[in-house]
This record gives sequence, C-alpha cells and structure tokens, in this order.
Amino acid sequence: MKDLTGLQGHYLVVEYLGTPYSGWQRQVGKTTVQEEIEKALRKIWGEPISAQASGRTDTGVHARGQSVSFVARKLHDAKVLQRALNANLPFTIRIKKARLVPAEFHARFDAMGKTYRYELLNAPVADVFRLDQCWHLPRPLNVAAMRRAARLLVGKRDFASFTSNPGYERETTERTVRKLTISTRGPMIYFTITADGFLYRMVRNIVGGLVKVGQGKITVEDFKAARDACNRSVAPASAPACGLFLMKVYYEKIK
Amino acid sequence: MKDLTGLQGHYLVVEYLGTPYSGWQRQVGKTTVQEEIEKALRKIWGEPISAQASGRTDTGVHARGQSVSFVARKLHDAKVLQRALNANLPFTIRIKKARLVPAEFHARFDAMGKTYRYELLNAPVADVFRLDQCWHLPRPLNVAAMRRAARLLVGKRDFASFTSNPGYERETTERTVRKLTISTRGPMIYFTITADGFLYRMVRNIVGGLVKVGQGKITVEDFKAARDACNRSVAPASAPACGLFLMKVYYEKIK
Repeated sequence: MKDLTGLQGHYLVVEYLGTPYSGWQRQVGKTTVQEEIEKALRKIWGEPISAQASGRTDTGVHARGQSVSFVARKLHDAKVLQRALNANLPFTIRIKKARLVPAEFHARFDAMGKTYRYELLNAPVADVFRLDQCWHLPRPLNVAAMRRAARLLVGKRDFASFTSNPGYERETTERTVRKLTISTRGPMIYFTITADGFLYRMVRNIVGGLVKVGQGKITVEDFKAARDACNRSVAPASAPACGLFLMKVYYEKIK
Repeated sequence: MKDLTGLQGHYLVVEYLGTPYSGWQRQVGKTTVQEEIEKALRKIWGEPISAQASGRTDTGVHARGQSVSFVARKLHDAKVLQRALNANLPFTIRIKKARLVPAEFHARFDAMGKTYRYELLNAPVADVFRLDQCWHLPRPLNVAAMRRAARLLVGKRDFASFTSNPGYERETTERTVRKLTISTRGPMIYFTITADGFLYRMVRNIVGGLVKVGQGKITVEDFKAARDACNRSVAPASAPACGLFLMKVYYEKIK
C-alpha cells in the first residue's frame, strides 16, 4: 500500500467530448483523456501525478460526469484548482467540479454505481449540430417494444450476453441494473441505465439489442432468450460509441 | 431576364454547421456552403447549376433553416432530390426539406422575413458538446435588464447603429423588427429576432449591445442613446459568429 502521509486526496467531476480521444486510458502514441489530465496536473504541481477514473471509457465515448481521483501535496483550494485545470486543459475536456477528499478516496474502488445515457436520433435526416454525439437511425423505432425488452434487464442478473469480452472480466458477469428507462424528446430517444457496475461494452451491447427489437428484427422473446443464453455470440451487435455518455458516478460520501 | 422556359424551380430548406465553412457565399480558395451545394447539384444534373440563398451567412454562422432556390430541368420528385442531395453533401450540410416551386421563385427576392436565434451559455464552465455552437460567458448576465433594452428595438426603425458596414447596404438602414424575445433554459440564454430583413451583422451587433447591458457595462438608457445615434461607431462590439443560427425564412406561398 502506498504511503499517503501528508498527501491530499482530490476528486474531480470531468466532462469530455469523446470524439478526439482514444478513450480514457493512457496509451503509447495515442491521445487520451487521462494523458491530458495528467499533463495538466504535472504543469500545476511540477511533478508527475497519476489520475484514476471511475472506469475507462472507449474511443469516441463521451462523459458528462466522469469522476477522477488523485493524491498530491495540497497546493490550492478546490475552486482555484478547478480554474487552474480548466486553464491548462484542451477545450474538449472541462472540470465541472473539484473537491478535496481523504487521501484514501479512489474513484474506481469507491464507486457504488454509475448512470450511463445512450442518445439516439430517430429522424429521417441527421442533425449537423450533434455529429458524433448521437446514433442516427432514420427509420422509426418501436419504442413500446423496446421498453418491454428493457424491463427484462432490470435487477440482479448475469449480463454475460452483453459484454463483448467476458474473459476480460476477472470475476463475475453478474451485475445489478437498478433502473433502465427509455424516454423520448422530439426525435431523440434516450436510454438511461443505472447499475452497481458495468461490464465491458455492456451499455452499447444492451442498446444494440434493444434497437434490434425496436426495428422489429428480433422479438422481445428473442431478446429474452439472448439474455438467458449468457453468451455474447448469440446477442445482437453493439451500438456505436458516439451515442454513449457517462452521466454520473455515485459514492457514499460525495455528492 | 433569364429565359425560364422548360425549367423547374426548386426550393430547399438547408441546415448547416457553420464552423468548417467560410460562410454561405462562393469565394475562390475557400470552402463555402454554396460551393458544396452547387457541387452536389452538378453531380446530380451533370451540368453547372447556380444556387441562391435567402442571404449570406458569415464564417462560423450556423443555419437550422436557410432557404435555397435554383432552377434546373426537372429530373426527380422532391423526395428523391432530397435524398440524392444528402447523399452527395458533406455531413455538416443537410437538406431538411425539398419542394418543386415555380421557376420564378427566388430565395432572396421573395423572402418576406427571417428569424435568427443567438444562443449564449451563461455558466461558469463551458460545454464541451456545444463548442463553436454558442457564446460562452461565465459571469451571470442580468436578463431582466437585457429584456428592457430589447423592447427598445421592436418596430420599424433605423438600425444604422447595428450594422457593421452601412455603406454596404445600397438602400435604407430601416428595418422592421417584428419580435425580439430573450428566453432562458437552464444556463442557456436565447435571443430570438424576427424581422422583415436584416442589415449586415445586425443580429450579432444587437446581441453584443444587449450583453453589455446584461453585464452592467452600459445602462438601458445608454443602449437607447446608441440606438438613436444611428451610427455604428457609438454602439457596442459585435457578438461572436459561433452563437448565431439562421432559423427560418418566410415566404408568402411556401410553408
């Protein structure tokens, strides 16, 4: 265990446009959100600081409320830190909130749950103001049928059919989906999913399956059978990354 | 007068993201919306076709409802034409509507009025999903004061104080503002202006002035005096292009 004596914990809520980034996680030769944030931290502290997120996001996936933690000597109050970071980050990454927290706080290990939202534009013509910020499907989807299928996923279940790489998960593929709603506003369809945790690609795989139901390509019963198979290879294809937004990460003591 | 015998008039409602374009109008060595549309028309008809818009938009200005007219041999019905154009245009330009109209119809000369909307984000931190699609001002604006100033512009008036280049206008600087509303939704402030016509930079100059009132840098009385001076040099600076959207152009016989 790292010695945290004299170090201050820091918690950030971060918004980013996923389009220009190869996801959250640092990778040699690629531009990632983690790299940009760590570069800004290094400028402010003058020494390398490692930042942890609540979880990775894939290339092209957006965040309205990713949470990030790091430990470092206390230099600033949280407001000053927020401004300093925003002044040193690219415009496509913004710190929405900064808080000082105990040094033991960890954005990933302490996360109790998350909410993702998947945004789909269901209209004949695409929206030039949301390019790469939604999935555009021109033909009308059956929202009522998608809602019936969505209800089949709520609760504690094995989501093995909805993870693209089950081997990547070290432990169980069981997760608890607390809420899964499908709402509409004008031509937009929003899939909002809250769970205690998410498997790799789980939201995009769920949305990919629900959309097949909405298109009438599979029935609600087919969807249920795919869920029960606990096998990714029988489930429908994934939805594209550009429609996915990490909205919020929940912690016991931080709001 | 051009001989229109045997030619079909075409009317388009066009949405575009202004960011990648040097405005509407064709210019040597620059990428413009007119050029892209005329390129797509040429691909479809196999011959050069000139397209007219209701008016130019400046570099970086967006359109949700620019109107465009052209005359050409009748090749397609309007639905097929819309799809063909969208298939040949960059993703940042979309045809929202296409109609066959009399060959005499002209998007600029027949326009009876227009609505523009200026979108301003008034929040401490910028929005990564609306970069180049709004004006971000972090300090709170006084909306009530801006509304008082806005009321001073409604009606038939000389708007010489609000055009950046009055010499460019061949005729009068008098226009009739039918409606000017300031509405808010969350941290967004929307300035919506409908007039029978607009002088060059008129909306951005009006919004620039209203914002000065909202910031408390000038009073409503100062704003009135600037209006009455009928002289651009005494009026406040222009608002940036990125917040401006051409929403709708009105015609007598087309909805």
